[in-house]
Amino acid sequence: MSKPAIGFVGLGAMGFGMATHLVKEGYAVHGYDVFPASIERFSAAGGIPAASLRASAEDKPFYVCMVASAPQVESVLFDSEDGIAQSLPRNATLLIMSTIPASTAQSLTERLHTTHNRPDIHVVDAPVSGGAKRAADGTLSIMAGGTTAALEAATPLLSTLSAPGKLYLVPGGIGAGSNMKMVHQVLAAIHILGASEVQGLAARLGLDAHATAERIIRGPGAAWTWMHENRSPRILGGESEWKPGVSAVTIILKDAGIITTSAREHHFPTPLCTTAEQIYLSALLQGYGSHDDAALVRQYFGGAVAEVDAAGLAAEEKEERTRLVLDLMEAVNLVAAAEAIAFARFLGVDLHQFYGLVREAAGGSRVFVTQGLEMIEGRVAEKAPAGAETVDALVARLEAAVQRARDLHCPLYLGNAALGVLSLARRAGLGAFSSTAVVGLYDGVLGKL
Amino acid sequence: MSKPAIGFVGLGAMGFGMATHLVKEGYAVHGYDVFPASIERFSAAGGIPAASLRASAEDKPFYVCMVASAPQVESVLFDSEDGIAQSLPRNATLLIMSTIPASTAQSLTERLHTTHNRPDIHVVDAPVSGGAKRAADGTLSIMAGGTTAALEAATPLLSTLSAPGKLYLVPGGIGAGSNMKMVHQVLAAIHILGASEVQGLAARLGLDAHATAERIIRGPGAAWTWMHENRSPRILGGESEWKPGVSAVTIILKDAGIITTSAREHHFPTPLCTTAEQIYLSALLQGYGSHDDAALVRQYFGGAVAEVDAAGLAAEEKEERTRLVLDLMEAVNLVAAAEAIAFARFLGVDLHQFYGLVREAAGGSRVFVTQGLEMIEGRVAEKAPAGAETVDALVARLEAAVQRARDLHCPLYLGNAALGVLSLARRAGLGAFSSTAVVGLYDGVLGKL
Repeated sequence: MSKPAIGFVGLGAMGFGMATHLVKEGYAVHGYDVFPASIERFSAAGGIPAASLRASAEDKPFYVCMVASAPQVESVLFDSEDGIAQSLPRNATLLIMSTIPASTAQSLTERLHTTHNRPDIHVVDAPVSGGAKRAADGTLSIMAGGTTAALEAATPLLSTLSAPGKLYLVPGGIGAGSNMKMVHQVLAAIHILGASEVQGLAARLGLDAHATAERIIRGPGAAWTWMHENRSPRILGGESEWKPGVSAVTIILKDAGIITTSAREHHFPTPLCTTAEQIYLSALLQGYGSHDDAALVRQYFGGAVAEVDAAGLAAEEKEERTRLVLDLMEAVNLVAAAEAIAFARFLGVDLHQFYGLVREAAGGSRVFVTQGLEMIEGRVAEKAPAGAETVDALVARLEAAVQRARDLHCPLYLGNAALGVLSLARRAGLGAFSSTAVVGLYDGVLGKL
Repeated sequence: MSKPAIGFVGLGAMGFGMATHLVKEGYAVHGYDVFPASIERFSAAGGIPAASLRASAEDKPFYVCMVASAPQVESVLFDSEDGIAQSLPRNATLLIMSTIPASTAQSLTERLHTTHNRPDIHVVDAPVSGGAKRAADGTLSIMAGGTTAALEAATPLLSTLSAPGKLYLVPGGIGAGSNMKMVHQVLAAIHILGASEVQGLAARLGLDAHATAERIIRGPGAAWTWMHENRSPRILGGESEWKPGVSAVTIILKDAGIITTSAREHHFPTPLCTTAEQIYLSALLQGYGSHDDAALVRQYFGGAVAEVDAAGLAAEEKEERTRLVLDLMEAVNLVAAAEAIAFARFLGVDLHQFYGLVREAAGGSRVFVTQGLEMIEGRVAEKAPAGAETVDALVARLEAAVQRARDLHCPLYLGNAALGVLSLARRAGLGAFSSTAVVGLYDGVLGKL
């Protein structure tokens, strides 16, 4: 069975892996990039070099756009000389796989269909998650939105690029894929800084970095995040791991910018994600933008966290201090889950699909898995059921960690932001409710409790 | 008329000025300090050197404690060898003029009166504001708390140290002076960072630093703060003004720590003050603790703000960008006022006295003066009256400034924190209310609107 020809623009780290994977799977992939060297590299890997953007699109029933930003997507579509809106064949399927705001995916599609008079083109917004290696292996997570017909046309290609069970067809039309990725990245953006924040505090407390990470990752408690498991080896590895590293500060900063810009368009509060974004901007200003995001631990601790020697610490002291670190992490992760879920609910994202996606993805946390459904299903307008921790009790745990950090002159950006949200929830009368009720502060349902 | 002998401990920058002023006014002041050089300097200035802490207290009907921190006050009072609890004469008046938490002033007084069996000693907590020059001139602002008898005994001395109209006898007993200073410092701590934040954003926007400062300080709008007028010359002066400078980052950091520690004890949210504190801690971690707090502009802009050349900017562009800067400042100052007033209300501080004090002091802002009374008198549980700006409208103004900063990759710590608070207020249903109603989010009165 012959496979259709594919046009592909954007042969950077992610795009190159995806395009060459499609080549391996037997597709004729015509690749284009603004950097000629990238086209040559693609050609050497078995791809078909396109002489121009126009040539990459002509006669291609499928087209993948994997450029770096929304303005670049716009230029690919509508460049007056070369834009693919002019050159794609009738009834082509266009996969916008760059991470862009949902509103941009919607407005670009509208312009394509009306201003440029190409209503025949099926458009899917299908941002990905998973990094360059998974791109090259065809095992990405993909969140796709579009009309039923567009999703149907795009599914074979999207399946080829994604791992089994990791292709999410998101209800809601064009933009729904981008919204789903965005609300997932709320968690990712917070947890990435969270990993540095807890390891930084642990170092300031004189705790062993490896033992702390082990306890978070494999301990019996609720502190685990996917990001902590993924980032802590590089956080502990120190400077030698940070430049160039695996995932630069600028990468998560870009996603955070999409989130906070969208939140502002909707006048929706995202205080934790915004706090993380501000610290990413601080790092950028300090010249660390190109460093691995694990280097953010520098924003908390001046030395190498792995060199902290905890040998002199008595067992009870060690346990008491570790407890502070775990309490910090659990509280931040709970407010992060509330922030992401409330924003997703506000945007009309399918919350059960969101829940299923997060528990398998880079934004996952133990807190989200165990307490997210309660927030999603809205069983929060009740006083805390027996056994559930109240807002008051969580505030008390977090306050102890924040106070100790303050005594040590250790910044605790996320911990303080989470405490601010929880304390406002207390002031709003939620103190005796289950801690998951903090989602009500974001939902704006307080008057109804 | 002979003046009473005074014991005095703590001959640092502030204490030295206060003690020598008392000498000039004809008091016999017996000064002590842990640094012998400070005692010698005091002696050279006409003071009487005390050979020991004990000697500074014996037979002194009045005693002033102006050491640097709560643990030092505790040691002055209760040191087992030398503590003045043992050596002050009967019915002495003790003025604790160090800035310490109200709860510490209360617990130390309780220990003095009961555990140490000295109920005869009149204790006043009387923290000051105004800097070393005003200390030496006897023109400080002083906020004093204590029993009626204690305040009566202390008043002549406090009057000598303060400017006309700047001695505030605060109702509420011991600790009331400290609480009054603390809630004033909520404003100071936010406005100090605010001065750097708006000048930093102005620089990133390519605006002239002097013209921006002039517009804020003398323009017709609502952006003025006392701190901006005081700090902007040093912010614009650049590196040569910062080390050693006039007021080190560690000084405001200490006050911020008293505020946030007290807020945590009461589980009260202070998100803006906490945000400022976290940036002070960042600066400390970067090695800037001893620099003037005007150096915080470095957290926003890498170069010298005064060297930004705005000559190429068209008049309308200049006006549009300046408007963003003013909007940022007004919104931050409004939320700062709400945060300080709500915390003061929560602590039982006399709010009309607080209002009168702030408008004459370093925490003052045009927004506080024009909108503070509305927040204090609780006329917020109404939709916005004609002519008043709504929360929604203020959010829109602030969002424009925050978005532009984000587009420029400029951190905007306070602007984002203020937007978080205002957006949560919107979610709670306050969007159509007057912007002053944001105080309701802190007050926890939302359910009653």
